[in-house]
Amino acid sequence: MDNKKRIVDLELRDRITEVFYIKEAEFRLRRNGRIVDGFLKIVDNSGEIEAIYWDISSEKLKEIEKIKLALIEGQVIKKKNNGQLQMSIKSLKEASEYKEEDFIPSSGKNIKDVMRQIDEKINSINNQYLKNLLVSFFDDMIFREKFKKAPAAKKLHQAYIGGLAEHTINVANICEAICKIHPQVNRDFLISVALLHDIGKIEEYQLNGTIEYTDKGKLIGHIVIGTEMIQERIKQMIDFPDDLAIMIKHTILSHHGKFEFGSPKLPSILPAVALFYADDTDAKINGLINLKDQNKNIDRKWSEWVWWLERPIYLAEQNIMEESVKETKEDLEE
Amino acid sequence: MDNKKRIVDLELRDRITEVFYIKEAEFRLRRNGRIVDGFLKIVDNSGEIEAIYWDISSEKLKEIEKIKLALIEGQVIKKKNNGQLQMSIKSLKEASEYKEEDFIPSSGKNIKDVMRQIDEKINSINNQYLKNLLVSFFDDMIFREKFKKAPAAKKLHQAYIGGLAEHTINVANICEAICKIHPQVNRDFLISVALLHDIGKIEEYQLNGTIEYTDKGKLIGHIVIGTEMIQERIKQMIDFPDDLAIMIKHTILSHHGKFEFGSPKLPSILPAVALFYADDTDAKINGLINLKDQNKNIDRKWSEWVWWLERPIYLAEQNIMEESVKETKEDLEE
Amino acid sequence: MDNKKRIVDLELRDRITEVFYIKEAEFRLRRNGRIVDGFLKIVDNSGEIEAIYWDISSEKLKEIEKIKLALIEGQVIKKKNNGQLQMSIKSLKEASEYKEEDFIPSSGKNIKDVMRQIDEKINSINNQYLKNLLVSFFDDMIFREKFKKAPAAKKLHQAYIGGLAEHTINVANICEAICKIHPQVNRDFLISVALLHDIGKIEEYQLNGTIEYTDKGKLIGHIVIGTEMIQERIKQMIDFPDDLAIMIKHTILSHHGKFEFGSPKLPSILPAVALFYADDTDAKINGLINLKDQNKNIDRKWSEWVWWLERPIYLAEQNIMEESVKETKEDLEE
Amino acid sequence: MDNKKRIVDLELRDRITEVFYIKEAEFRLRRNGRIVDGFLKIVDNSGEIEAIYWDISSEKLKEIEKIKLALIEGQVIKKKNNGQLQMSIKSLKEASEYKEEDFIPSSGKNIKDVMRQIDEKINSINNQYLKNLLVSFFDDMIFREKFKKAPAAKKLHQAYIGGLAEHTINVANICEAICKIHPQVNRDFLISVALLHDIGKIEEYQLNGTIEYTDKGKLIGHIVIGTEMIQERIKQMIDFPDDLAIMIKHTILSHHGKFEFGSPKLPSILPAVALFYADDTDAKINGLINLKDQNKNIDRKWSEWVWWLERPIYLAEQNIMEESVKETKEDLEE
Amino acid sequence: MDNKKRIVDLELRDRITEVFYIKEAEFRLRRNGRIVDGFLKIVDNSGEIEAIYWDISSEKLKEIEKIKLALIEGQVIKKKNNGQLQMSIKSLKEASEYKEEDFIPSSGKNIKDVMRQIDEKINSINNQYLKNLLVSFFDDMIFREKFKKAPAAKKLHQAYIGGLAEHTINVANICEAICKIHPQVNRDFLISVALLHDIGKIEEYQLNGTIEYTDKGKLIGHIVIGTEMIQERIKQMIDFPDDLAIMIKHTILSHHGKFEFGSPKLPSILPAVALFYADDTDAKINGLINLKDQNKNIDRKWSEWVWWLERPIYLAEQNIMEESVKETKEDLEE
Amino acid sequence: MDNKKRIVDLELRDRITEVFYIKEAEFRLRRNGRIVDGFLKIVDNSGEIEAIYWDISSEKLKEIEKIKLALIEGQVIKKKNNGQLQMSIKSLKEASEYKEEDFIPSSGKNIKDVMRQIDEKINSINNQYLKNLLVSFFDDMIFREKFKKAPAAKKLHQAYIGGLAEHTINVANICEAICKIHPQVNRDFLISVALLHDIGKIEEYQLNGTIEYTDKGKLIGHIVIGTEMIQERIKQMIDFPDDLAIMIKHTILSHHGKFEFGSPKLPSILPAVALFYADDTDAKINGLINLKDQNKNIDRKWSEWVWWLERPIYLAEQNIMEESVKETKEDLEE
Repeated sequence: MDNKKRIVDLELRDRITEVFYIKEAEFRLRRNGRIVDGFLKIVDNSGEIEAIYWDISSEKLKEIEKIKLALIEGQVIKKKNNGQLQMSIKSLKEASEYKEEDFIPSSGKNIKDVMRQIDEKINSINNQYLKNLLVSFFDDMIFREKFKKAPAAKKLHQAYIGGLAEHTINVANICEAICKIHPQVNRDFLISVALLHDIGKIEEYQLNGTIEYTDKGKLIGHIVIGTEMIQERIKQMIDFPDDLAIMIKHTILSHHGKFEFGSPKLPSILPAVALFYADDTDAKINGLINLKDQNKNIDRKWSEWVWWLERPIYLAEQNIMEESVKETKEDLEE
Repeated sequence: MDNKKRIVDLELRDRITEVFYIKEAEFRLRRNGRIVDGFLKIVDNSGEIEAIYWDISSEKLKEIEKIKLALIEGQVIKKKNNGQLQMSIKSLKEASEYKEEDFIPSSGKNIKDVMRQIDEKINSINNQYLKNLLVSFFDDMIFREKFKKAPAAKKLHQAYIGGLAEHTINVANICEAICKIHPQVNRDFLISVALLHDIGKIEEYQLNGTIEYTDKGKLIGHIVIGTEMIQERIKQMIDFPDDLAIMIKHTILSHHGKFEFGSPKLPSILPAVALFYADDTDAKINGLINLKDQNKNIDRKWSEWVWWLERPIYLAEQNIMEESVKETKEDLEE
Repeated sequence: MDNKKRIVDLELRDRITEVFYIKEAEFRLRRNGRIVDGFLKIVDNSGEIEAIYWDISSEKLKEIEKIKLALIEGQVIKKKNNGQLQMSIKSLKEASEYKEEDFIPSSGKNIKDVMRQIDEKINSINNQYLKNLLVSFFDDMIFREKFKKAPAAKKLHQAYIGGLAEHTINVANICEAICKIHPQVNRDFLISVALLHDIGKIEEYQLNGTIEYTDKGKLIGHIVIGTEMIQERIKQMIDFPDDLAIMIKHTILSHHGKFEFGSPKLPSILPAVALFYADDTDAKINGLINLKDQNKNIDRKWSEWVWWLERPIYLAEQNIMEESVKETKEDLEE
Repeated sequence: MDNKKRIVDLELRDRITEVFYIKEAEFRLRRNGRIVDGFLKIVDNSGEIEAIYWDISSEKLKEIEKIKLALIEGQVIKKKNNGQLQMSIKSLKEASEYKEEDFIPSSGKNIKDVMRQIDEKINSINNQYLKNLLVSFFDDMIFREKFKKAPAAKKLHQAYIGGLAEHTINVANICEAICKIHPQVNRDFLISVALLHDIGKIEEYQLNGTIEYTDKGKLIGHIVIGTEMIQERIKQMIDFPDDLAIMIKHTILSHHGKFEFGSPKLPSILPAVALFYADDTDAKINGLINLKDQNKNIDRKWSEWVWWLERPIYLAEQNIMEESVKETKEDLEE
Repeated sequence: MDNKKRIVDLELRDRITEVFYIKEAEFRLRRNGRIVDGFLKIVDNSGEIEAIYWDISSEKLKEIEKIKLALIEGQVIKKKNNGQLQMSIKSLKEASEYKEEDFIPSSGKNIKDVMRQIDEKINSINNQYLKNLLVSFFDDMIFREKFKKAPAAKKLHQAYIGGLAEHTINVANICEAICKIHPQVNRDFLISVALLHDIGKIEEYQLNGTIEYTDKGKLIGHIVIGTEMIQERIKQMIDFPDDLAIMIKHTILSHHGKFEFGSPKLPSILPAVALFYADDTDAKINGLINLKDQNKNIDRKWSEWVWWLERPIYLAEQNIMEESVKETKEDLEE
Repeated sequence: MDNKKRIVDLELRDRITEVFYIKEAEFRLRRNGRIVDGFLKIVDNSGEIEAIYWDISSEKLKEIEKIKLALIEGQVIKKKNNGQLQMSIKSLKEASEYKEEDFIPSSGKNIKDVMRQIDEKINSINNQYLKNLLVSFFDDMIFREKFKKAPAAKKLHQAYIGGLAEHTINVANICEAICKIHPQVNRDFLISVALLHDIGKIEEYQLNGTIEYTDKGKLIGHIVIGTEMIQERIKQMIDFPDDLAIMIKHTILSHHGKFEFGSPKLPSILPAVALFYADDTDAKINGLINLKDQNKNIDRKWSEWVWWLERPIYLAEQNIMEESVKETKEDLEE
């Protein structure tokens, strides 16, 4: 999908003919009682746009209702005050040769590279029980494939294919830094739980045009799902120490750090506290980088209200830094 | 232990010779630098008392430090302002023929009778999956024995041997009432989860002189332990529907109703909400009945601060009711 | 209003001629500066629908502004993405022979039957003071009529004519179950306060097309109104014990269980705690049954966000149970 | 009790012979099993001190247990690290000619003067309904006497005889200032509710050696008690407007400003908001003045933790101000 | 701008030709792909209205995009259900002779008069350090001019030019009342900090058509800005006592009273507590007076939800008071 | 003080003659009215112990009251249940040759080494404004000496001389790791604010036997003190960009991340969020390492309640890890 015109790049009056995923569709009878118009939300892997299909014939209506992926020809006809665009559809037909998965954003990082880094971390673990547990997951091809495709979240951070792997290695790297600063923290344990902390997410999300929660994800959640997955593997290992199993499961269960974020226990051992911080740090910083990315072409200094921070974010900080470097240089040149 | 003089019945100046469990012991050198006194906390299954052992010889000191169960001869020598007593120890020797378990309070109810009621509830379940799941637990003799001995809590409610069984049937009975009032609630499901909701407690507590948390109890908690136990049984059953398994586990996980009480998910199906209410209702009302029991011989109208309610409780309400009945009768007789 | 076509049953393109209550009306001049269109919200006792009246003449406009109940002829012309419908009005004229009350939903239960059950409860009270107090209310015909018509809430639970009586007997029945499980709870007192706990609601709501709060309801609230009503009756009774009066009023004042729900005191006697649980249990379970009812014809597994639970609800649980029964049967038949 | 030596003025080694109120008494048998010592808490209207009565004879013991007011001869024998003193009792005998009331602190203000100011405020009210309501209370001699004796709180502010009257006029005066700044606030209404806002306190406290809550105070609370008192008077007045009655009761019910402080409704009319601020301002500032008073002879810059502010208070601010004035003067003189 | 027709006074069908400030503008291509319509939000100093400019030519479009102040001719064409109006624009041209400032509301009070009162307060301060500090601000003409123009808030209270001065003298007057009631409060200190407490607001807001936050206001806030301003002046004064400087800065830093309102320290000296109450009292009462003012022409008894009180407000209280006075008079006349 | 016997190493019955700092002293007259005993709290840089000085003569008493540092000869005479010891003092005389500072614990790290690392970080900054600002602090010898001696906290983390420097470089190193993982974060800015974030602490604490808050620390706090310090330096620098100054101050002000922890603003730029996480991570992990250190000689698996985490901590995790390594080795050897 390389040379495609992407939703994120559209401008008022642009004409476009591309394949899109139809996320929502609503049809309305005009007040004359005869003509039906369609109001759609269509997405590609860069974003979402409203699109209106005026005056749909009865036959076309039946056809459209079943289509998920469509080749759409249209023009951007409205720019709202907040920058949102609206498109008018000229023609629309099924595009069955595409897969829904192609319409979900993917990690910008090379997934092979990320997985290789994870494998290196596993190789560096000395404790055989922990190493065996990690190997039992990451050498299991079914698990590995699911893990590689899973997102790290629905919206907040690394919300794209490969996001889980990317977030996992980031968390492990922050843990590595903590271990260097504080050698009293048990590295084998902390790196191991860092690699395992979010594995339950492979069953928490499903890719359905966009990233969605599964019912299991909503009713059980990745924290308990992941704990169950670990429990199952441990049961199949001979002589895995009970105490160690309890500590691993405790660390997974408590890694959200607060009850109201779905942890049934609070981090009560040193590495569990460290994991909580490493996880939260990467999630929030990645979230902010995404936010700045989404705003990079918009001319304003403050973002909209960010629900997961409960505040808006000041976006000008990189410009101010660059400006001040420039000033410095100018001073030097004088 | 029938004719024993119990701690709860002691009065100032009473002399006593009984077996006690030594919960704590502290030894102090007097300022003359020669004499050592021992300050103990001793318990029977009725309560706890401070006991002082004056002037312990060096040999006796070594002996005492290892004793858990002791035949103690002593006299009550102090009554503090708050009603607490203090005992002076005359002699103390090991009482190895007793078991620590004898010093933990038991349910006043007949445990066989309670288990029979639970079995009847199981028999009344029509859904075969749920019935099989229940039978797999309650017909497993190892589980059944542990279940019969387990307490329902450390302090708040039914904190005695047999307490878990007693609380379980109470919760099931409140659920039964809810189903009668609101026939829209699925009885098979609600009664089944009522019987299973606290089974994780058989691994959350240990009996060690008093009821104590296990490390697993503190680090994992009965909610996730119980969910794991159910998951294991379900895995061994053929064709147990996935959706049903998720709903059962969700209901166990969410039955504390709030994140801050250790539920990683909030009750999100009707029977989960009903179970939360039934559980909380029985726990709190049992807790209050215990509180009133503990205060029945104390002459005051308000209890001390009750931490789990964050308020003191007015204790005179039964007296006021009885008084008002008497008045009525007197009016009638006149 | 039996054979009426109800709002809840309407489909796209349906034509209808029925009497509706006009809840809101807005009129707009088209940009040509001449034609005025009307945008109405109309209700029957099953629900609400948007209705547009195109091109209203000046005379008609004046007429419509005063109409509350109207015979409306129209057609459903739009189905929005969320399932909401929009109607186009062809004609509209006053329907003065109807009463607003007819447009408020009523309890599905037989009100006579519910009142008979309440009377039986009153007869079962042994304490003469409590019985007299109850009789002074429920044998007072003015009170009894208001009580029979009152709703139990504005939206959450039993929000219909007769709802208060229905909720009251449900709460009393849950209390009955608690008394059976825990005979230490004083039944006379608990059943009496269960019957009285919400009587203040007869002055908290008014029926004005829909159920609305009175100013008194908003400024004083049913908790204090009910307490005042009881205080007035007690003052007229000879020798009603002071202590008993205080306990009754305390129980009414505290029955919402938390300060933030408008209770100026927290439940501080055992039966007050029991009443709080019984009340909350019935309210929330009834609320959930309504919610499931409203969603029964909608094809989705999760409800919208439920404000009084602060979460969405999973709606598929009854289907899953039925499905699993079917499977069992099929297994047996094989 | 003018020339009395007061507890607040005692120093280590002081000898004293005065009448005290015995608040608590605890008796202990020494370890020899023969001698009994008594540990008492005794109060005068300035404060409280621990007093030990060594070696009490059996006859004396019986006598002491019944004594509430006693002429005690003793010496101060210990000064603890925190400044607290301990007294040794040499002799103790009943002092029946005193009343318990004499041992409760009184307002430093002239109560007649305070009541006169209240009467002047009442006279300045133009609205006849409000004036009549106020007169019905303050010209009722039974109410007036109770009101004059009542404290404003148990501990926090104006916790002395006459404190309610003093707090009431202060609140009315702050309201007066608000009305001058914001003439849009209805003065008649605001001054009236200021005078009535805490009248329920005459039944919330009882004087029993110290200021204590009544059961009614704990179970119903002065907010609802006061509302009931107003309701009763209003019912006896002819034609008192319903709306006005609801507003007055709403203002009393809401004057604590937050649910968690026992208000079942939040201030929802302008004068109710104003009353809440005036009440809170006077209570907290009076509380801080008391705190500074209690610390005035203690050489430290920070108070202990103040529970009702959830922080300690810096006490040096008056000294710093005086110091800076002195510096100024010195500068001027140079 | 005296005889202008103001937005707040417009009615459906009104024609108007006035200068407005264009706050927002959005342009839409009609579905025919040729005609562009403009949707504007325009304000004067009385309020805001939606205005639609149908069929804008390409040249006009370029012109409009740059205009901030415009002479607009139009007609009110829609009245929504909630009372909001919509205008149709007939012509629009730049009105460069106006200043944006003219479109921001001003205090109803005479600013000279308010400043004179502030100067009198300063003259009444005896402590020379405090007086000098105050004079260093209020006799500095640059500060004085900014202070006179600054609003006290963006929305809640005194949100108009001159609002800061008006709020400042009100707070000082409430403090004056507190000092009269409680002479133990140091008047010199309290009045001084009252006058200085919000001076940071001169850099927190900017006037840009409406009152807006500056970036500095959002990132630093008036509390710390004000503290910095005071610190700078104090550094330039000889021998200003350190302790006094700390107390002043502490009082400014803590005057919002709660961490969540942006105070990094809680009020920990008596005058800081007093200032917090005086500030909050004036802000909230002024806010409510504004609210009532905005609703004075709307026929309803309850305001919309007030976000800064988290409740709606009952608006009928003045009417009820006036009604009850009338009744009284009628009674007297009879 | 190398070969000293330290408080942390004392055992019951140990005799000791060392110099200690007297933190608290209380003197009591025995009940015979003649003999005075002294109850002291004495500290060295390892910990604190209670010490009793029996029967002090009048002359000695006067002498002791002035002594802060004393050569004490004594014996450990009591071991309490919780492990706390009590000492009996045989002799006590002033030890004027010691400095109080010697009795405060110091960082285990080489302070020169830590400062060198900080200097290297400063050298690595490219932005000249930031570098100059850093140099203006760390090349100012008065600042540098204070910074080297300052603790990072009173109790929680790095509460020793040199603790501030140690914590500062740790935070900078975590920030370094974040910049490596997320190159979008501006390294120059983040490292600079990491080095400056806690400089206000040099005026927040004073060393007075133990680490204590200054009044300025309690009333203003290191967050605002640090911001003021930066503001002063920036004012002396030519052309320091305003925007950059605001961003630095914002980041210092917001680095506690939550209002209730004393930040008057929430982190609203990406590097401010990163700094908050890095700071909190190091503080909490250091705090936990201290906690484990304090418990290393105590035989228990759970710590006491940790107030800054609101939970107890499981201490056995390192043992369990080591145990599991041993098991692995044994398995391999078999």
